[in-house]
Amino acid sequence: MENARPLPSYLVQRFHGWKATAYAENKAWYRRLADEGQRPRAMMISCCDSRVHVTSIFGADQGEFFIHRNIANLVPPHEPDGNQHGTSAAVEYAVTALKVAHIIVMGHSKCGGVQGCLDMCSGRAPQLEEKSSFVGRWMDILRPGYDRVKDITDEDAQSRALEKEAVMVSLENLMTFPFVAEAVKTGDLSLHGVWHDIGEGSVEQYIPGKGAFVPV
Amino acid sequence: MENARPLPSYLVQRFHGWKATAYAENKAWYRRLADEGQRPRAMMISCCDSRVHVTSIFGADQGEFFIHRNIANLVPPHEPDGNQHGTSAAVEYAVTALKVAHIIVMGHSKCGGVQGCLDMCSGRAPQLEEKSSFVGRWMDILRPGYDRVKDITDEDAQSRALEKEAVMVSLENLMTFPFVAEAVKTGDLSLHGVWHDIGEGSVEQYIPGKGAFVPV
Amino acid sequence: MENARPLPSYLVQRFHGWKATAYAENKAWYRRLADEGQRPRAMMISCCDSRVHVTSIFGADQGEFFIHRNIANLVPPHEPDGNQHGTSAAVEYAVTALKVAHIIVMGHSKCGGVQGCLDMCSGRAPQLEEKSSFVGRWMDILRPGYDRVKDITDEDAQSRALEKEAVMVSLENLMTFPFVAEAVKTGDLSLHGVWHDIGEGSVEQYIPGKGAFVPV
Amino acid sequence: MENARPLPSYLVQRFHGWKATAYAENKAWYRRLADEGQRPRAMMISCCDSRVHVTSIFGADQGEFFIHRNIANLVPPHEPDGNQHGTSAAVEYAVTALKVAHIIVMGHSKCGGVQGCLDMCSGRAPQLEEKSSFVGRWMDILRPGYDRVKDITDEDAQSRALEKEAVMVSLENLMTFPFVAEAVKTGDLSLHGVWHDIGEGSVEQYIPGKGAFVPV
Repeated sequence: MENARPLPSYLVQRFHGWKATAYAENKAWYRRLADEGQRPRAMMISCCDSRVHVTSIFGADQGEFFIHRNIANLVPPHEPDGNQHGTSAAVEYAVTALKVAHIIVMGHSKCGGVQGCLDMCSGRAPQLEEKSSFVGRWMDILRPGYDRVKDITDEDAQSRALEKEAVMVSLENLMTFPFVAEAVKTGDLSLHGVWHDIGEGSVEQYIPGKGAFVPV
Repeated sequence: MENARPLPSYLVQRFHGWKATAYAENKAWYRRLADEGQRPRAMMISCCDSRVHVTSIFGADQGEFFIHRNIANLVPPHEPDGNQHGTSAAVEYAVTALKVAHIIVMGHSKCGGVQGCLDMCSGRAPQLEEKSSFVGRWMDILRPGYDRVKDITDEDAQSRALEKEAVMVSLENLMTFPFVAEAVKTGDLSLHGVWHDIGEGSVEQYIPGKGAFVPV
Repeated sequence: MENARPLPSYLVQRFHGWKATAYAENKAWYRRLADEGQRPRAMMISCCDSRVHVTSIFGADQGEFFIHRNIANLVPPHEPDGNQHGTSAAVEYAVTALKVAHIIVMGHSKCGGVQGCLDMCSGRAPQLEEKSSFVGRWMDILRPGYDRVKDITDEDAQSRALEKEAVMVSLENLMTFPFVAEAVKTGDLSLHGVWHDIGEGSVEQYIPGKGAFVPV
Repeated sequence: MENARPLPSYLVQRFHGWKATAYAENKAWYRRLADEGQRPRAMMISCCDSRVHVTSIFGADQGEFFIHRNIANLVPPHEPDGNQHGTSAAVEYAVTALKVAHIIVMGHSKCGGVQGCLDMCSGRAPQLEEKSSFVGRWMDILRPGYDRVKDITDEDAQSRALEKEAVMVSLENLMTFPFVAEAVKTGDLSLHGVWHDIGEGSVEQYIPGKGAFVPV
């Protein structure tokens, strides 16, 4: 693997700073976590977006959240076809091996993946329709959501609505996994859908009774 | 979606605490990031494991790292077959849309996914071989790495070796993506492989000249 | 005291979050409580167990409960021998200085201290019988309760019964304190015994007329 | 035990409210904690004072803190004399059975126990010197701290200083427990001393390098 390079020095320096401070202060706990294993209370599914950090927003320290991050925080439908499904593997591990008590799907404002879905489904981005486009094929998961927002004329409102649809589609797809549906039924697992406005710092959560997202 | 529930109150309280402190202190920057878009310098590919937080270890704040987290920080080989490939979509978006300058793959000690691969490939976990096992099918990505470590008798040393193989396999698979190989060739993108000992707090990086991981 | 270390940063952040939200919202009341003194209506005696929080279960805010927490929520018999008795000091302060109107002893399911008592009294844990075992010598308080449950064969039922005996023994020992017996006689103080199932979330209370614990 | 009474109805109502809301939202996690046991990261030693709730201040939810509360958050010196020592039992359980990573001693402003110690040591409260005074005998633990503050003339400053001495004396006494000193030496346990101003909402922590308490 002759293409690998040493880390850029700015990251090396920051690592050494972390090792001498945060790691040193918490060494006893980190060693215990290493020896005894993780027992996270919740699984978070959020976007890869660099502006979204669930550990900050929810004050989570090492050992608290099992975090899966992908484009647009999407969960595909259950499809046990013997192919490689990374998100499905993460959910399966969290629910059946780690037995998390919560799965929280968090969408966010200004999501590039969601914007790509809008562009693709509205015909503005034909390259995303190509078989070779990984982003396009991944955003196919959100097509059912696009159908529900395609008539919204205001662009910002439409983006916001599709970002929230991404959360809803993921929650519905989670329920297609038998081990998820079973754990929800027995009360061993609860599902939560939230949407975060990265500029305003606010968080809204889906309330079934209202059928809408409401500020937390 | 009648199965969704409100967030547990301990997370709500922590969010409000974050909003009133960290968000309030950084509001100007977070608003700019929201308005102008993200421009992360690096993509991090790390494990979902609750004990691993690259933002802590490398002191990254909002806007710095585009972070994809999956089971055992694996990247599958390039396979533009029209199916949904979440990790491939994340890499495609990072390299072609965001034009990140670095992709850093970070493995870690005590990785449950890697342990699952060891169990599966050694015959100790037949259920992971089943077509319906998402974790098993995902860990198939690491089989080439297993072949290189299967004769190591000490269990800890074998786990550690396979954790590092996960990083190497991912780096090699990244190079099978034409847009990655192209950007590496022109010098617009560099790849990095690191392994983190979560109990000791140390980080090692792969140095091609040595053909091994060396403490940072 | 060169061994003291700064607080881990996750606690510092959570504190700052609390200060900016819950404290800020309640500042007027907290300042009054600080200036005028506490006037709690009840003393709670509960276990140190991390899963038991009487302030949550009974919705108590700052100023409401004077809370003493020890291993297995035990109260030793009155013994004014000039030695240091922390629980006795807490009871004395609550009854004679703060003049609380209620003392509530709350036991709970899965109590580690009670399990230790079972192991010790049944001979399964000889190390707890040693003079140097603080936990063992503390659990001696519960020996009278063990005698009443030792013939119960079902393990879960026996643990549950001894957890409730811990509450009863504590209530009986409270009555050996003259200032407690006096205040109960004049009607200035009432005693209450409850048991909380931490998994089911239920609470049972001791009803003398029934001679048993009954769901609240 | 004919003296026990049913819970006051205001507490029953609050319990039912908690059961229907907070418990219901977190049932999956609470059941897991009940089944698998507690694994608290830290032990908190704080005062019984009704105005001090470490779970609020540090945003701790069920399962996070093993909490021992006594008068003036004191830890007596190690004394394995075969008598009942409740605080020593709590520390022994936390360190040797639960293997907590941190012990945090938190003192606070306007502490009644500390005021009692000032009154007793200065001769203003002869009744606290009596053999039969549990509070007096408990506050004997703090006499070494009184000697260090007895010449401070301003009353508020003297109280504040003795409240901080209570934290220091407890930390020093913790180190007299062999299992504590051993765990500190191997890096498996760290000790922390903090003082909380209940009116102002602030927290200060002891920094050895400065030999003083400094705002967090």
